[in-house]
Amino acid sequence: MPSILAKMKGRIQDLLHYNFLISQLTCLMSFMSKLSNNYRTHTCGELNIKQVGNQVTLCGWVQKSRILGGLTFIDLRDRYGITQLAFNTEVNKNLSEQAGELGREFVVQVIGVVRERQSKNKNISTGDIEIEVNEINILDQCETPPFTIEDKSDGGEEIRMKYRYLDLRRGPLQRNILLRHRVAQEVRNYLSNQEFLEIETPFLIKSTPEGARDFVVPSRMNQGQFYALPQSPQTFKQLLMVGGFDRYFQIVKCFRDEDLRADRQPEFTQIDCEMSFVKQEDVRDIFEELVRHLFKKIKNVDLDKFPVMSYQDAMRFYGSDKPDLRFDMKFVEINELAKNKGFNVFDQSELVVGIKVDSCAEYTRKQLDELTDFVRKPQIGGKGLVYVKCNEDGSFKSSVDKFFDQDALKKWADAFNAKPGDLILIVSGDVNQSRQVLCELRLEMGNQLGLRDKDTFKPLWVNDFPLLEWDEESKRHHALHHPFTSYLKNEAELKKIEEGNLTGLISDAYDMVINGVEIGGGSIRITDKDVQARMLDWLGFSPEEARAQFGFLMDAFKYGTPPHGGIAFGFDRVCALFGGSDSIRDFIAFPKNNSGRDVMLDAPSAIAGEQLDELGLNLKKNE
Amino acid sequence: MPSILAKMKGRIQDLLHYNFLISQLTCLMSFMSKLSNNYRTHTCGELNIKQVGNQVTLCGWVQKSRILGGLTFIDLRDRYGITQLAFNTEVNKNLSEQAGELGREFVVQVIGVVRERQSKNKNISTGDIEIEVNEINILDQCETPPFTIEDKSDGGEEIRMKYRYLDLRRGPLQRNILLRHRVAQEVRNYLSNQEFLEIETPFLIKSTPEGARDFVVPSRMNQGQFYALPQSPQTFKQLLMVGGFDRYFQIVKCFRDEDLRADRQPEFTQIDCEMSFVKQEDVRDIFEELVRHLFKKIKNVDLDKFPVMSYQDAMRFYGSDKPDLRFDMKFVEINELAKNKGFNVFDQSELVVGIKVDSCAEYTRKQLDELTDFVRKPQIGGKGLVYVKCNEDGSFKSSVDKFFDQDALKKWADAFNAKPGDLILIVSGDVNQSRQVLCELRLEMGNQLGLRDKDTFKPLWVNDFPLLEWDEESKRHHALHHPFTSYLKNEAELKKIEEGNLTGLISDAYDMVINGVEIGGGSIRITDKDVQARMLDWLGFSPEEARAQFGFLMDAFKYGTPPHGGIAFGFDRVCALFGGSDSIRDFIAFPKNNSGRDVMLDAPSAIAGEQLDELGLNLKKNE
Repeated sequence: MPSILAKMKGRIQDLLHYNFLISQLTCLMSFMSKLSNNYRTHTCGELNIKQVGNQVTLCGWVQKSRILGGLTFIDLRDRYGITQLAFNTEVNKNLSEQAGELGREFVVQVIGVVRERQSKNKNISTGDIEIEVNEINILDQCETPPFTIEDKSDGGEEIRMKYRYLDLRRGPLQRNILLRHRVAQEVRNYLSNQEFLEIETPFLIKSTPEGARDFVVPSRMNQGQFYALPQSPQTFKQLLMVGGFDRYFQIVKCFRDEDLRADRQPEFTQIDCEMSFVKQEDVRDIFEELVRHLFKKIKNVDLDKFPVMSYQDAMRFYGSDKPDLRFDMKFVEINELAKNKGFNVFDQSELVVGIKVDSCAEYTRKQLDELTDFVRKPQIGGKGLVYVKCNEDGSFKSSVDKFFDQDALKKWADAFNAKPGDLILIVSGDVNQSRQVLCELRLEMGNQLGLRDKDTFKPLWVNDFPLLEWDEESKRHHALHHPFTSYLKNEAELKKIEEGNLTGLISDAYDMVINGVEIGGGSIRITDKDVQARMLDWLGFSPEEARAQFGFLMDAFKYGTPPHGGIAFGFDRVCALFGGSDSIRDFIAFPKNNSGRDVMLDAPSAIAGEQLDELGLNLKKNE
Repeated sequence: MPSILAKMKGRIQDLLHYNFLISQLTCLMSFMSKLSNNYRTHTCGELNIKQVGNQVTLCGWVQKSRILGGLTFIDLRDRYGITQLAFNTEVNKNLSEQAGELGREFVVQVIGVVRERQSKNKNISTGDIEIEVNEINILDQCETPPFTIEDKSDGGEEIRMKYRYLDLRRGPLQRNILLRHRVAQEVRNYLSNQEFLEIETPFLIKSTPEGARDFVVPSRMNQGQFYALPQSPQTFKQLLMVGGFDRYFQIVKCFRDEDLRADRQPEFTQIDCEMSFVKQEDVRDIFEELVRHLFKKIKNVDLDKFPVMSYQDAMRFYGSDKPDLRFDMKFVEINELAKNKGFNVFDQSELVVGIKVDSCAEYTRKQLDELTDFVRKPQIGGKGLVYVKCNEDGSFKSSVDKFFDQDALKKWADAFNAKPGDLILIVSGDVNQSRQVLCELRLEMGNQLGLRDKDTFKPLWVNDFPLLEWDEESKRHHALHHPFTSYLKNEAELKKIEEGNLTGLISDAYDMVINGVEIGGGSIRITDKDVQARMLDWLGFSPEEARAQFGFLMDAFKYGTPPHGGIAFGFDRVCALFGGSDSIRDFIAFPKNNSGRDVMLDAPSAIAGEQLDELGLNLKKNE
């Protein structure tokens, strides 16, 4: 028996040895084949203590190099991380010298062996190891970059836009673009799992005069005619509902030729969605879930059920249709307590309205003067600011205590539910203007008190918007959302129509607001051709214009249209929100500047005379 | 003990009863809440025998109705399927009459109870059940549609394009759009899992004169200047590689203002990809795996390793750079055997080349005449056709047996490896032209013999394309792929450059071909600014033009450019391939017609004079 066992043991050892050799050989062959075929075996973010002793090939950019006596260290960077390369003059003088001469942003391939570091760097995933390099191949050199390619760059906005491909190498932008990819993927997978189909709609469509200006595209094959680039796929997604695709979405570029304000882009991306057989609540529920899912997946943040606030309440309590709910300071209207008490400014105001700021009764004269200066800034447009300090001793100190005695101020404090130590700030004037001013002041106080934390998220829905607003300048109604938005289907609205009270109509529309930013908005649509025709009439379209522009949609409504509604999210804005930034430009790979130019490409630019000829166009002479 | 057991039993029964009641109540409440809030509880493709007895609410379109005595049946359709609705005059006369009056394509909501069908329909998933309807709500009526909305429609192309939203309701188009969505999702998930990032590139870019014509977009803010819509994101994806994003993809709209041929669209979709630190084999491997993955997931087809064929071999053996490998009939060149034997036609030809068609020696005179007519069609351009029948008895019958005796024909047959019973078809003429003619004949024979099965898939890579071709008309070189494609980096190519043999240069480019269709193509790129400048020089750009058009790219190459390459797939074409169709239009929700018009929208169209004024443009008068 023992001899059999011994034999078996020997045989097993042979086998193990054999397998070991085979595995070594396989490893080697695989490595050889990699080496001969592939530029790299690993990325710069991949190696750790487990690979110590392995030969590897890496490619990347030289982030920086340090020479310490006979030792040279280089940080090699790619999208995945940074790996330290080590060279020792005593081991290989030539190679060390070669390494010392590598400039910043050179692209190199190195072959070497992974070894444990002497002094570890706990801040990076590869910080336990370094590469003892045996071979360097310079894949490309680099002229001195126009700015430093580090998380904090020394380059100004303009130069970084011109060399956007270099700016994109910096960590913050790399992370933003990766975040954008992840958000898009999550949106697509979530909606696909909910039976939504992503359906591409055309980019060369028909120009419509409603809303912002279209970019147009002259047709060569049909001279004198133009396509337009879509401001949104609105009518197409509605036609898809007529076509029976009851759940549609698309992450899609849209175009608006507007005079650009800061942080607007002539081309921007929407998450565009539409559903059939739904009411407002259904649409809100689905997309609230989507956003909750994204926050969980991307930020690991759990969001509660979103509150729903009417437009009227939002304006009344926050002076804005996109209130920032990360902090309170709800507006309190005190007309009853403040008007007709002998203070002329209040007496002549439509509205006296204020906010209570917790624990700020100690604000100095200087601080209060600065707040008054703030509301008087031209872009804010306030006339002045009244304050009431609720002193710790129960007394009150106010800028208007000439007109209001302690009893009167006590009543104010009660209205604001103010405690001793709180500060009340009050503005007055026209209803709209005073609300706007107080809204800005509220946000400013939120900023000053650090109540607008980028890592806190307070979403809500705002609904019950007016359907139409009257524009004095053009003497016609404008759609607050767009001409395809339905009014609420109830008797009250029908009565308003009968009475001609069009600006009183309430729309079946809703906005999603997070931290004071409108990230999405939508509505239940008109699906009746006669209602649509009437809406276009209200908006000042002649029947002929309505026909020419939207005849195809009204025709479609003749053939069995399901009730439908949808929403569109500003995708650039959503990414900026997740990235904790106010600037959408940092989340777009190749943005335009504030004048709508691509300074890297130098576009737009002149085109050849023959191109104009082919299009049947002449440039107007400057007159 | 028994009493305890009895008590426990009683308690358990109570609990079960209680739970049963609770569950019933929960069910009821959930149903009530659904009923009050939601248009529907289920889709028309969802119910089966398990739901018998449940009350449900469905919404959909009336596909058709049948009245059989006192019974009325309606097929209710949505995107998910068809459910049969049943009405009985004896049960509810009014409702039955109401049902009988519903027209085709009416949109209705019905509330009823699921019951088992008397006669089941095994062809549909809901075929075991029907709904005994208690309530019908007409959500929208429908005028008589301009064509029947069934899998086989009676509508012509033009009318179906005009009412595309109705055409989209038909089963085949619903399935195509669903397929497109699925393919896109699979591509995105597969590439995301491989560390590819989807990065959006801009649509308003700079016009470049290379390749097809650009669509241009006049700028209002910069009058007299124009953006262009991208023909592809080529330069942007290369800049992303310079920016360190080593794996990029995008499913993206591209634009070409070409004179449209059948099945070309002015806007089309690409799966656009680029990778850094790769050689041709790396790119081919990754995207071969992608396509293999798609075939497995979408078609449940396993594809073998794709063969690689040089452009030279593809032209020589199949007369095409996109050979259909579903069948053989490889070209055989017989100059040696056929020329200088006294047959004038062959003697004056550069090339005598043919195919062997298995088991077709029995072709009749008429059939052979038809083949001769085929090659002589103007769009084929052949001059004639020579045949050799390899008779079963070992003899040969040929259209040229006046010039070639049995021994000579035997040698031909040997060259073609022909057996008795086979047919040899031969053409002659210029090399290029005779190959083109024979290519068409080969495909025609494949069609006639049923060798081009839509469910068989034969992919291959074609590579080693010429880098440049000389264009006699414009007297300059054109890039066969595009100006950013590298030539192979070997000594042979450098020698050709030295010798000025530019048309001899072989590019580092590759096409993926499946079943005779080029579904994708790409290349390893030039990454050296001097090589790029030289390439643009070869293509006839002056240094100033090169600078103006591509200066940004050559600048980028100064700052550490990784070796990179990529590929782009025609996504519309890929979808058509998976859908077993030749027409990409059937896989686009809102395509343009052959004149580049959207006949539904009536676009392009005239725009207002003020719009032109704002753009600083005049229409040219017709002269």
